[in-house]
Amino acid sequence: MGHSSTNVRPTVADVEAMDRTDPLGHIRDAFALPPGVIYLDGNSLGPVTHAVLAAVEKTAREEWGRDLIKSYNDAGWWQLPVSVGEKIGRLIGAASGETVACDTTSANIFKLLHVALDLRPDRKVIVAEGQGFPTDLYIAEGVLSTRPGKELKLQGVDAPTIEALLDHTVAVVLVNQVDYRTGVRRDIASLTKQAHAVGALIIWDLCHSAGAMPVDLNAAGADFAVGCGYKYLNGGPGAPAFIFCASRHLPHVNQPLSGWWGHAKPFAFEPGYTPDPGIRRFLCGSQPVLSMRALDAALDVWRNVDIDAVRTKSEALTDLFIQRVEATCGSYGVTLATPRDAAVRGSQVSFAHPGGYPIMQNLIARGVIGDFRAPDRMRFGFAPLYVRFRDVFDAVEILRDILTRETWRDPQYQTRSEVT
Amino acid sequence: MGHSSTNVRPTVADVEAMDRTDPLGHIRDAFALPPGVIYLDGNSLGPVTHAVLAAVEKTAREEWGRDLIKSYNDAGWWQLPVSVGEKIGRLIGAASGETVACDTTSANIFKLLHVALDLRPDRKVIVAEGQGFPTDLYIAEGVLSTRPGKELKLQGVDAPTIEALLDHTVAVVLVNQVDYRTGVRRDIASLTKQAHAVGALIIWDLCHSAGAMPVDLNAAGADFAVGCGYKYLNGGPGAPAFIFCASRHLPHVNQPLSGWWGHAKPFAFEPGYTPDPGIRRFLCGSQPVLSMRALDAALDVWRNVDIDAVRTKSEALTDLFIQRVEATCGSYGVTLATPRDAAVRGSQVSFAHPGGYPIMQNLIARGVIGDFRAPDRMRFGFAPLYVRFRDVFDAVEILRDILTRETWRDPQYQTRSEVT
Repeated sequence: MGHSSTNVRPTVADVEAMDRTDPLGHIRDAFALPPGVIYLDGNSLGPVTHAVLAAVEKTAREEWGRDLIKSYNDAGWWQLPVSVGEKIGRLIGAASGETVACDTTSANIFKLLHVALDLRPDRKVIVAEGQGFPTDLYIAEGVLSTRPGKELKLQGVDAPTIEALLDHTVAVVLVNQVDYRTGVRRDIASLTKQAHAVGALIIWDLCHSAGAMPVDLNAAGADFAVGCGYKYLNGGPGAPAFIFCASRHLPHVNQPLSGWWGHAKPFAFEPGYTPDPGIRRFLCGSQPVLSMRALDAALDVWRNVDIDAVRTKSEALTDLFIQRVEATCGSYGVTLATPRDAAVRGSQVSFAHPGGYPIMQNLIARGVIGDFRAPDRMRFGFAPLYVRFRDVFDAVEILRDILTRETWRDPQYQTRSEVT
Repeated sequence: MGHSSTNVRPTVADVEAMDRTDPLGHIRDAFALPPGVIYLDGNSLGPVTHAVLAAVEKTAREEWGRDLIKSYNDAGWWQLPVSVGEKIGRLIGAASGETVACDTTSANIFKLLHVALDLRPDRKVIVAEGQGFPTDLYIAEGVLSTRPGKELKLQGVDAPTIEALLDHTVAVVLVNQVDYRTGVRRDIASLTKQAHAVGALIIWDLCHSAGAMPVDLNAAGADFAVGCGYKYLNGGPGAPAFIFCASRHLPHVNQPLSGWWGHAKPFAFEPGYTPDPGIRRFLCGSQPVLSMRALDAALDVWRNVDIDAVRTKSEALTDLFIQRVEATCGSYGVTLATPRDAAVRGSQVSFAHPGGYPIMQNLIARGVIGDFRAPDRMRFGFAPLYVRFRDVFDAVEILRDILTRETWRDPQYQTRSEVT
């Protein structure tokens, strides 16, 4: 802020040099990105890879169309929740057999909150974030509706921090590693340790971190985690979500969505429920194979990717974006709404502006796709597998042009669409 | 049984004439069936249509790949659960706004059992079928695990019939219209009336009837229903399931899987849950768009299809199959395990045989695809949209050949696969 809007480094030549030496630069070729688009919304919906397009077509035409019911065995459909879970597990610090892909983040939080309350029967409190992604709170409400005597305590309502809510009444803490709105990143190891110190369990919501940075659940001693398949994992719209359960808990957990895909012997068609001895016990009903196959193929892009390099590039991209926006747009009312310190930041940057909604619509019309979150946040996601430094540079130039010329005040950008 | 195995009518010429005059005969062309296969397993996984193949590729390449996040609005992704639900609703006698496509049959049963228990707070009993599809019972167990004081009573365990279990302690009856194993079909209107007479609610599981016969939920005064998208609706492997809720109940139901897709204003990101005023309140998390699009396109095959003609053909196909099997294979130990009276039968026929498993494997190896359900049932589904009378004739000839030559005793057919 207050910097001159001209003569700010780096130059186009500088950012192009950064792209040329980027060790992840070649991975962008795996993605089928539309021409002329700078896609900064991979934290909302990751783009498709060429491998996914091929996998989806093969699944529809050959596995389903030609081989029909046989594909449950021969094409591994039945095992997809586990085989896809294994691929995700490698990105989040899970051991083999601790991760399964299934259902939705919301449904998986429902399962885990019940599990955690059952594991701490003498405790009554669920702790969560009052400003966390709302579905986490909605699901906690749903769980409490059938668990009389249990209660929800919220950071920002009942206490300023999660840590201040931790005591011996707490059964479980449900918390996001990266906040969807602000991009604030929590330290998994530290908060897990503090939860355990009071005897509480912890569920990590990795929706905005899995695939964007190293996550090491087992090194942190985490109990449970959930996350979604369609953001940084690029699994496609509404891709199945995932559950992580530490192996030490696995024999002791029984979740109430006990459908036949979680049964120990699903094709024995026994009338009584016996959970699978392993991670399959978190399954419920038939999983959507076309969507699961897309996620499965999308995860193959991570072969040979160094997740530490992903984080290094993520920090560089977000640093560059913050620096350029503040240098060139700072006098037009945009305010950083994300931590300046990369160590406590995810892979997204939010800027607040009273005209955030129409400005974002104007950006989208000019090919820079981010999104908007109420009340005034323009949110930009930087997925290191396909976002270039040049993209960051160009996006800021377009934002600056929109702000200086005030084109965002045009009526065409004011109309709110149903989904933003 | 006891008929001569030769000179049995109809002849090949007869069944070919039946196909030529079949008013549904032309619809088979909509399906991309593999050559050389007689597919009698559409009650387990319906085949793909050409329209579905095109829709899946368009969704992946254009809606996701090219238009990215914008497709939630512009391609109607956000509305798919409702728009697909409307298409299903027309096949099951629902009014507009009473059906939504989402999640899995298991998860949807979970929601509805909770809803029904809440609507009858002074009653404690769930009634279900001891031999029904197991996931219905597994889910009832899961529901009871968080509802102390409630209990499950089973037909076949606690009483011989559902009707005998109906009394003023019953909150809800969960029952299949067509039994997955025997093909026995219940009368929706009659049992609904009897349940209501004791003040109980009723949930109809339509997995083996929706798309196979006329279902008129509103004419029967039904309360709730669930069903799956991947059998007679041909939505593809693990296609989203559906929920029907009678409009009179809609304002009063609150289901515990209260995720953000069911919120009245999901993009306001409010911390408290307020359910959508309509059928969306049964949604939970993000729906799998690729799989939902496949179901969406599959349902278009029903345009201009007379569902009464579907039932007429279904009865003719199953009658022909039973008659031919008994006439030509009756002396080889096959026993009809489905009602002989078409009025109480679904669109499938089961025959019991001690060698049921290897016989079915032998059939599959010869291109006749049915399936096997423990302990001894060979199950054959007859989906009237694409199964021909000639297919029935040929399938029985192959079965007769397998039984007379005892080729099913070959060791290659004895090995049990993981999923049958």
